Amino acid sequence: MNDYFAARRALIDEALRNIAQRAAAPKILAEPLKRALTSPGKRVRGVLMMAVGESAGCKPEKLADAAAAMEMIHASSLILDDLPAMDDALLRRGQPTLHREFGEDLAILAAVALLNHSYGLVAKNYAALNPRQWTMQQVIKRVVDAVGWDGTIAGEAIDLHSEGSHLDFDTLEIIHSRKTGALFVAAAAVGGMLANMSPAALGRIEIFAKNLGLAFQITDDILDVIGTPEHLGKDVGKDADRLTFVKLAGVEGAKKLSDELAETSLAAIANLGPNAAPLRDLAILVRDRTR
Amino acid sequence: MNDYFAARRALIDEALRNIAQRAAAPKILAEPLKRALTSPGKRVRGVLMMAVGESAGCKPEKLADAAAAMEMIHASSLILDDLPAMDDALLRRGQPTLHREFGEDLAILAAVALLNHSYGLVAKNYAALNPRQWTMQQVIKRVVDAVGWDGTIAGEAIDLHSEGSHLDFDTLEIIHSRKTGALFVAAAAVGGMLANMSPAALGRIEIFAKNLGLAFQITDDILDVIGTPEHLGKDVGKDADRLTFVKLAGVEGAKKLSDELAETSLAAIANLGPNAAPLRDLAILVRDRTR
Repeated sequence: MNDYFAARRALIDEALRNIAQRAAAPKILAEPLKRALTSPGKRVRGVLMMAVGESAGCKPEKLADAAAAMEMIHASSLILDDLPAMDDALLRRGQPTLHREFGEDLAILAAVALLNHSYGLVAKNYAALNPRQWTMQQVIKRVVDAVGWDGTIAGEAIDLHSEGSHLDFDTLEIIHSRKTGALFVAAAAVGGMLANMSPAALGRIEIFAKNLGLAFQITDDILDVIGTPEHLGKDVGKDADRLTFVKLAGVEGAKKLSDELAETSLAAIANLGPNAAPLRDLAILVRDRTR
Repeated sequence: MNDYFAARRALIDEALRNIAQRAAAPKILAEPLKRALTSPGKRVRGVLMMAVGESAGCKPEKLADAAAAMEMIHASSLILDDLPAMDDALLRRGQPTLHREFGEDLAILAAVALLNHSYGLVAKNYAALNPRQWTMQQVIKRVVDAVGWDGTIAGEAIDLHSEGSHLDFDTLEIIHSRKTGALFVAAAAVGGMLANMSPAALGRIEIFAKNLGLAFQITDDILDVIGTPEHLGKDVGKDADRLTFVKLAGVEGAKKLSDELAETSLAAIANLGPNAAPLRDLAILVRDRTR
C-alpha cells in the first residue's frame, strides 16, 4: 500500500468515524453500527471512487461522503453474507462477525441501516458538487442498479443457490460480475459522474473497473486457498463447496487470469493522461495481491 | 373501504405488479420478490401519500412510483420483522411468511432489494415532477431519516430489546413514533413535497400524519388482542411479551386514545380546504378500524 492509497484510505476512515459519531441511533443499535463503520478494511471501493474523481480533476476530500457510502454498502453486504442463513462465517476483518457479537437481529438491522444511510450521503455529495453533465437521478439509479436485484443482491442469491452445480466459467462470471463487479463499477462510475466526467471518459472508466473488479474477486478466491485467517482477518477455506475460479483453473491458472484482467483494465485507461496515475497504481496493486 | 381508497389502492397495486414484472432479477430471487410485491395489503401509506398530493392539486397517477416505493419499504420492514431472529412470525397477509416459503437467505435479500429499489423510484418520481419548492436531496433525506437508524430500523431494534421492560408510555411512544410513525409521516411529507406543497401546509400535514400513524399503531395493538388470524391475515397474540398500548390502558382505554389521536389529526388539517376530504376520510377510517 503506497502513500497515495494510505492517504485516501485515511480520508475515508475519517468520514466513516464521523458518521458513526453523529449517527442518531439508539444505544442498542449504535454499538453494532460503530463496529461496522469503523472496523478496519481496505476501502478499495472508496479509494477507487476518489482515484476516478481525481483523474477528472476533483479533489478527493470532495468525494468523502460518497466514498464512505460505497464502503457502507460494501460493509452492509458483508454483514448479510456472513449471516447463519448465508455463509455462516465466524470471522470478518479480524473480529467475530457482527451477528456473533451483537445477535442476528441487530446485525441485520445494522446492515439495512448502513445501506439506507448511504443513499442520503450520495444525494448530499451530489448536491454539494452539482455536476452539470449528470443528474442526481442518474447517480442514484447507478447505485440502485449496482446493489439491487440485478446487482450485488442478485449475485449473492445466485451464489448461495449454485452450490453443488457443475463448474462453468459463464455461471461464475454471472455471479462475480454482480457480487463484486457491480459495486466496483458503480463506485468508479459515481466518482466520475460526481467529478463531472464526460460520457466518453466514463465509458473507459467502466471498462477499467469491470475488469479490475473481476481481477479483485479472483485474487480473493486465490487468497481463500493460499492465505491464513490471521493474515486475511476472515475465514479461509469457506469456498470449499462453492464454484471459484481457482477450482476451474487452479491457483496458477487463476493468477494468470487475474493478471490478464488487470492488463485489460490498464489498457482501458491508457489515454486518460497523468491524472490517472493512481488508477494505474490501483490496478497493479490488485494484480500483485497474490504475489 | 370507500370508492376513493379502493381506486387509489388499485393504482398502487398496478404499479407494484408492473415493478414485479419488469424487475430484472434472477429466477431464484424473482419468486420471493413477486410474492412480496403483489401479496395483498391495505396500502395505507401509499394512499396517504396520494391523498396528501391530491390535497395540493397533484393527480394521483403522478405519484404512483413514490407510493409504490413507500409500500415496498413497508413490505421490506415486514419481511425483516417476521424473521426467526426477530418476531419469528408464521403468517403474513394471509400467507406463510416469506422466509418460511423461500428460506431465510432469500427473504433477507428480497427485503433489502425492495428497500434499495425504492430509492430509485423516489428519485425517478421526483425527476418527473420536479417540484420547485423542494430539492431531490430533501426528499431523499426525508425517506432515509424515516427508514434509518433513528427511524423504522431504530424502532424495531428498541422494540425487540424492550421485552420484559416495565410498561411505560414514554418508551412506547418512542418505539411507535419510529416503528410506524416515521414512515407514515414520511409518506405524507414526500407526497406533499412532490406535489410542491408549501412549507406551512406541509407542517400541518406532518402533524396530521404523526397523530394518524400513532392511532393506526394503537388500533393494530387492539386488533392483535380482539382480532382473528383469518380476519387479519397475520399472527395474533404475538404481542403477549411486548409493551403495547392495550396492556397499558386496556382495550377500552386504547380505543379512547386512538380516537383522541384521530381527532387531533383531523384538527391539524381543518383549514386545508375541500381537496383535503380524502385525508379526513382516511383519519375516520383508521379511527373506526376497531369498531
